[in-house]
Amino acid sequence: MTDEYAIQTVVVASRPDGLPRPEDFAPSSEPRADLRPGTVRVRVDELSLDPYLRSLLGTGHLDDAPVGPGQVMPGRSVGTVVESDSEVRVGTLVIAETGWRAEAVVEAAAVTEVRLPEGVPASAALGALGMPGLTAYAAIERHLQPRAGETVVVSSATGGVGALAGQLARLAGARTVAIVGTDEKARIARDDLGYDEAIVRGRDGWAEALRVACPDKVHGYLHMGDQETLDGVAEYLAVGARVSLIGLIDQSNGAPATRIRAGALMAARAATYGMVVYDHADLSAEHVDRVGPLLAAGTVTTLEDRYDGLASAGEAFAALMSGRNRGKVVVTVAPTLSEEESA
Amino acid sequence: MTDEYAIQTVVVASRPDGLPRPEDFAPSSEPRADLRPGTVRVRVDELSLDPYLRSLLGTGHLDDAPVGPGQVMPGRSVGTVVESDSEVRVGTLVIAETGWRAEAVVEAAAVTEVRLPEGVPASAALGALGMPGLTAYAAIERHLQPRAGETVVVSSATGGVGALAGQLARLAGARTVAIVGTDEKARIARDDLGYDEAIVRGRDGWAEALRVACPDKVHGYLHMGDQETLDGVAEYLAVGARVSLIGLIDQSNGAPATRIRAGALMAARAATYGMVVYDHADLSAEHVDRVGPLLAAGTVTTLEDRYDGLASAGEAFAALMSGRNRGKVVVTVAPTLSEEESA
Repeated sequence: MTDEYAIQTVVVASRPDGLPRPEDFAPSSEPRADLRPGTVRVRVDELSLDPYLRSLLGTGHLDDAPVGPGQVMPGRSVGTVVESDSEVRVGTLVIAETGWRAEAVVEAAAVTEVRLPEGVPASAALGALGMPGLTAYAAIERHLQPRAGETVVVSSATGGVGALAGQLARLAGARTVAIVGTDEKARIARDDLGYDEAIVRGRDGWAEALRVACPDKVHGYLHMGDQETLDGVAEYLAVGARVSLIGLIDQSNGAPATRIRAGALMAARAATYGMVVYDHADLSAEHVDRVGPLLAAGTVTTLEDRYDGLASAGEAFAALMSGRNRGKVVVTVAPTLSEEESA
Repeated sequence: MTDEYAIQTVVVASRPDGLPRPEDFAPSSEPRADLRPGTVRVRVDELSLDPYLRSLLGTGHLDDAPVGPGQVMPGRSVGTVVESDSEVRVGTLVIAETGWRAEAVVEAAAVTEVRLPEGVPASAALGALGMPGLTAYAAIERHLQPRAGETVVVSSATGGVGALAGQLARLAGARTVAIVGTDEKARIARDDLGYDEAIVRGRDGWAEALRVACPDKVHGYLHMGDQETLDGVAEYLAVGARVSLIGLIDQSNGAPATRIRAGALMAARAATYGMVVYDHADLSAEHVDRVGPLLAAGTVTTLEDRYDGLASAGEAFAALMSGRNRGKVVVTVAPTLSEEESA
C-alpha cells in the first residue's frame, strides 16, 4: 500500500460534436493508485497528443473503447519509472499508456524502454522516434518506397508524421511537395523541413498549383486529411503510384466518410494501402537505428509545439485537431530526466 | 494491288447513352484493303467481345481514341493469316486487332501467334488463354495472392475474367465465393465453376448473405461491378485483405463514379490495386504455360457464349454489357482452322 494522495489528471468534460474545444476537458484529480506485482509507477514527463485520440471521444479506435464525461482522457507519455514491482528498474525512461495524468501505475509488460541516441531530447520518443515517426518510417519503407527522381506528396506535411515522411522521401532522392493548411506552415515546410514545394490546400486554384508543382505527376502520396485534398491528389497520380492512407478526417472530427474514386486508382494502376502503425511494430528497432542518428546529426529536423503543464492538455489537443499546431504536440508535465540531471 | 471487293464489317450506328443496344450497331462493308510490306491479311475466325470496348463508345480507353457513328467498331479476334508480306507464315493462327470485320490487314508486328495446348479450342485464345485469362491470372498472382484457408470473393464471377480467377483461387486452396447477377449464374458458379458459395448481388439481404458465406471475412476481392457490390464487400474485408480493381461500372455504362470508403481500407489495412492487363504482359508466357494444361485436362472449366455470324456482334455486345452473358462472349465469323481441318 502507498500513501493515498491526489494525482493530477485531466478528464473529459463533454464529448465534442465536431472539433474538440479546450472546455471539453477539465483538470481533476484521483487517489494515488497502489503498486501491484508486475506493475511500475511512471511519473509523466511529456504527454503526447495525437489525432487518433479524437476517435476515442466518438466511437472508439481499433480495440480501444470510447471514453465519456468524467473519465480520465487516455494518452501516451514518455515518463520515468519512479517505483517498480517488476524487473523494470527505477529511473528507466519509458513510453507508457498513462492517460492524461501526472503519474500512473501501469503493467510493466506494457511499457517500452526508450532508447535515445545521444543529443536527442526525451520528447523525440513521442515524435520522430515514437509512434508518429514509426508511422512515417513504415509508410515510406513499406508503402511509398520512393525512388530517386520520383515525386512524393505529403499532406499534413509539417505534422508529426508528415514532417519526417517528407524528409525521408527527400533523403531517398525524391522531389517532395508539401500540402499544408496555412501560409505559415508552407514557409516552415520549405524553409525548415526542406520540401521542394509547399501548397496551401483548399484555396482557389490549389489543385492547379499541385499540378504545376508535380510536372511528372505524383508517384507517392501520404494522406492525412480531408476529402478535397485526397481528391485533388488522387486525380493526379502517375502510373504505378503508391498511396498510403494514414489518417482520415472522418476518423477524427465527425466529417462524412472519405471516399476515393476507384477509376483514378485504376487509371494510375495505383496501389493503395491502409496504414495502422501497430502492424509495423517489427520495424521499431530499424526505425530508431536509422532515424536516431539522422536526428542527432541534424540531417532530419523535428518540429515541436510544446505546452507547459498538464492542465494545458485540452488547449493543446484542441489546437492540434483544428490544425493550429506546426509540429508534434507535446505537453511538458514534469521536468525531463535530462533537465533534472543538468540542474 | 489486290482485287477490290466488299469486306463485311459492323459499324457504330449511334453512341449509346447508357447500356448499348443491338441497334447501336449496323452491318456494313468496306473495300478490301491492300496488303503492304510488313503487314498480314487476317481472316477473322472468332471475334472477342469485352467490356472495355464500351468505353471506346464514350471517352476512349487508355490510349485508344473514342469511335463514333459510321466507324467500324474496334475489337480483337483470333484469326488465320491468309496472305502475308512479312515473316509471319500463311496459315498461322494469330490474335489481332481486326475490329468488327470479316477480314483485316494489320501490321505483322502487332499480331501475336497463338500457342494452344492440344485439345483446346482456338477461342480459348480470346478467353482463358487470352486477355481475360491473363487479367485473372495476374490479379491472382500479383494482387490477391490467395493462401490456403483464406476466402476469396469474385464479382462478375462467371464472366471471362471471374470464372478463371475463381478457379485459380480455389486451386490455391482458398474458399471461393461468387457474386453474380442472377439465380442461373449462381447455379453455374456453384455447379460448373466450383465456387463454394454464390450470392446474387443487389437483392435484399445480399450483404448479410455475403457475411454468412464468409465467416472469416474476405481476404481477397476481385472487383468488376457496381458501387453497391464494392461497398458490400469493402465493409467486410479481413485484416490484411487485398483488393484488385478490374472493372468499374462507371467505365462502361456511364454510371456515377465508383468510390471506395477509405476508412474501410484503413480498418482492414487493405492493399488495393488497379488492374490494367497491359501492365502484366510479362506474365503472358507463364500464364499460358500454367493455365493451358489445366484447361486441356479439364481441371479448369471455361464458359463461352457463342454467337454466329459477324452481324450478331451488336446483339452479343448488348447482352454482355447488360450482364445477360454467362461466360466469355465470342462471335464465330468464319469456321475455325480446326473445324476446317476436320472437315
